Amino acid sequence: MQYKDYSPEQLSAELEALRQDFENIKAKGLKLNMARGVPSPDQLELSVSMLDILHGETDCTAEDGTDCRNYGVMDGIPECKRMMASMLGVSPEMVMTGGNSSLNMMFDTISCFMTKPVVAGMPAWGLIPDRKFLCPVPGYDRHFGVTEYFDFEMIPVPMDENGPDMDMVEELVKDPSVKGMWCVPKYSNPSGISYSDEVVRRIAALQPAAKDFRVMWDNAYCIHDLVEDGDQILNIFEECEKTGNIDLPIAFCSTSKITFPGSGVAAMAASENNMKVIKNKYKYQTIGYDKLNMLRHVRFFGNYEGMMEHMRKHAQVLAPRFEIVLNKLAGQLEEYGVVRYNRPRGGYFVCVDVMDGTAKRVVELCKEAGVNLTGAGATYPYGVDPHDSNIRIAPSFPSLENLSSAMDVFCICARLAAVEKLTA
Amino acid sequence: MQYKDYSPEQLSAELEALRQDFENIKAKGLKLNMARGVPSPDQLELSVSMLDILHGETDCTAEDGTDCRNYGVMDGIPECKRMMASMLGVSPEMVMTGGNSSLNMMFDTISCFMTKPVVAGMPAWGLIPDRKFLCPVPGYDRHFGVTEYFDFEMIPVPMDENGPDMDMVEELVKDPSVKGMWCVPKYSNPSGISYSDEVVRRIAALQPAAKDFRVMWDNAYCIHDLVEDGDQILNIFEECEKTGNIDLPIAFCSTSKITFPGSGVAAMAASENNMKVIKNKYKYQTIGYDKLNMLRHVRFFGNYEGMMEHMRKHAQVLAPRFEIVLNKLAGQLEEYGVVRYNRPRGGYFVCVDVMDGTAKRVVELCKEAGVNLTGAGATYPYGVDPHDSNIRIAPSFPSLENLSSAMDVFCICARLAAVEKLTA
Repeated sequence: MQYKDYSPEQLSAELEALRQDFENIKAKGLKLNMARGVPSPDQLELSVSMLDILHGETDCTAEDGTDCRNYGVMDGIPECKRMMASMLGVSPEMVMTGGNSSLNMMFDTISCFMTKPVVAGMPAWGLIPDRKFLCPVPGYDRHFGVTEYFDFEMIPVPMDENGPDMDMVEELVKDPSVKGMWCVPKYSNPSGISYSDEVVRRIAALQPAAKDFRVMWDNAYCIHDLVEDGDQILNIFEECEKTGNIDLPIAFCSTSKITFPGSGVAAMAASENNMKVIKNKYKYQTIGYDKLNMLRHVRFFGNYEGMMEHMRKHAQVLAPRFEIVLNKLAGQLEEYGVVRYNRPRGGYFVCVDVMDGTAKRVVELCKEAGVNLTGAGATYPYGVDPHDSNIRIAPSFPSLENLSSAMDVFCICARLAAVEKLTA
Repeated sequence: MQYKDYSPEQLSAELEALRQDFENIKAKGLKLNMARGVPSPDQLELSVSMLDILHGETDCTAEDGTDCRNYGVMDGIPECKRMMASMLGVSPEMVMTGGNSSLNMMFDTISCFMTKPVVAGMPAWGLIPDRKFLCPVPGYDRHFGVTEYFDFEMIPVPMDENGPDMDMVEELVKDPSVKGMWCVPKYSNPSGISYSDEVVRRIAALQPAAKDFRVMWDNAYCIHDLVEDGDQILNIFEECEKTGNIDLPIAFCSTSKITFPGSGVAAMAASENNMKVIKNKYKYQTIGYDKLNMLRHVRFFGNYEGMMEHMRKHAQVLAPRFEIVLNKLAGQLEEYGVVRYNRPRGGYFVCVDVMDGTAKRVVELCKEAGVNLTGAGATYPYGVDPHDSNIRIAPSFPSLENLSSAMDVFCICARLAAVEKLTA
């Protein structure tokens, strides 16, 4: 029976019972973390042999003759550009491989356009006092952090199972001070949904009032399937080619969740016009990124197919963790009508909506019981979830046993917060 | 006899002879490069065993328990911060270790202050239309590139054997739109001179009209001695502590010319106030830099003393190259009175002044004869050397034999350009 159908007496009894359950789990003194999309040690072990690839006797020459140990090559060695281009679904000419972090490349891109116009003759974004950015919600807190840092007004755009509400996006881009939009098109962080073909086509067909409107296409989970027949999304560059909008998207990816977070290789892809502005920054910013690490990655994987093979090993480690989360949610929360969630087919998160007005309380209770979750509201600009219902669960890091314990805690806390609210 | 004392007939005969010499060397079809401060393969070999440090079986745990293979630690693992702090002569709390490039950290620092004020309440540099930066000359072209990219008016400040002309600097900083100054205080690029104690003290004592004036202290060659008793410069932070000016300097260094250019570790040091502003940017820009590479470096060197020991091996490779350059200049050019140069005790360059008005021509002639030099003027803001005399020679990369040939070319070209000018 759902809590909303409980009588006051039943609710009162339930509250008592849950409070006792909560005290019992608190007494266990757990210390568990489901806060961030961090690979588990089991996943890191999949890549440790990459550290053997380059050694003291290795020839570190790239295919174009570059000594990867020395200076030079601003946009990456050819074989690495080619591999990352396959990930991004573009030709290598459109790619720049960078340092260890696609977040860093995204930050640098926004930072670039803050002081230099991406469209010649227009003012740089920093000169537009009421600059705005579209933020599909729930979304990635670090994206919102970047646009908040650069003082954009962030406009939340609700997501459904097909992606962002495109009616709303099409309306909002009529404002010339709306300069861009964050997108995680595949296995979106945190909702796990992949953009439908229609959504991708409508994004590609946007006619923003601002000629310097750009779509930040963070394809972070482009090959991060949990199932054999992973989601397929349309290629944004191909769609934009058709609509004459090739300058609209700037795409990003990295190997952070493929090899080692923090020691991976990041890449971006953009049209010739965009890349000209971006590379004109990079040529002052650096002589070149870590070519030895690029070479290490290419020789470890061999090619893009090798990378895809490697991802199947990640899926084997991750899938059972997602199963635990989903089974716990189904088994312990569904009957009370206090939870909605999706079943992601890839990515790093299970996106849960607890009863409206209880997300903050659930996260607080979990913390008290030793389970660390992403802060409630973190998936919304300025940390403001209007329904106070969304919680991002990151199942990747804990062991299966710990994850199971953590989910038990979560389910009790979700129920307790709901009953507290209903009896308040 | 100096060319200026030659009779017209003697000059004419000399011109003929030099033209013949030039044609002869041109016919050799050389392809040599003395353009950039790039370590030679012999130097890279000194560090190849660093690639063996981390392998598939290695425990990659930092001393604070961080798994260096995973996400996290924005400002660097403690043991790496400590080692880089020793290089920079500061306490580890003042240090942030970053990616592979100190140039990137310098760019990011200026970029940060362009959109966010370094002193709370003041406008960000980007809002000052007539912003200016002091550029000791001759200086590092990539420094000037960064401030040119961000549209600073660059004001050249002549250097002498003690460092920048401090009378001029003290006068210029009375202008509140002068926001900073580039410094390479030890074995300056390209002049090779190290700042005298008086110069460092006068920098530390500056009272700029702009409270947000910052000294970019690029200590790129801080342990890059060519001789046993290398230059010693005063510690800028200690001097600024004495003058109550601790927020003035921001210091940078890297292991690019210690291990592998492009795969080294960069670091910066700054006061608490400055670091607060800078880290408030980094926390949005990245989750953390490559900790495995930091760990690799720390375990390779053991500690700062190990790094110093390693630098003595570099000196053994580099010193003979500098000897060749200096011997050629002394033996082939001094008698004609068409060259001035210093004898650097460290760093990567020999800074040569050829006869006024001939530097561009010398570089052009060298190129024609197959020897690539740094562009004449590159050592000045906007590429404008008022005397057209300064040429930066980078002896590190070529083999001893090639360097010797390249210097023969250089000397003939310097003489030819001088005689051309005297007979024009």
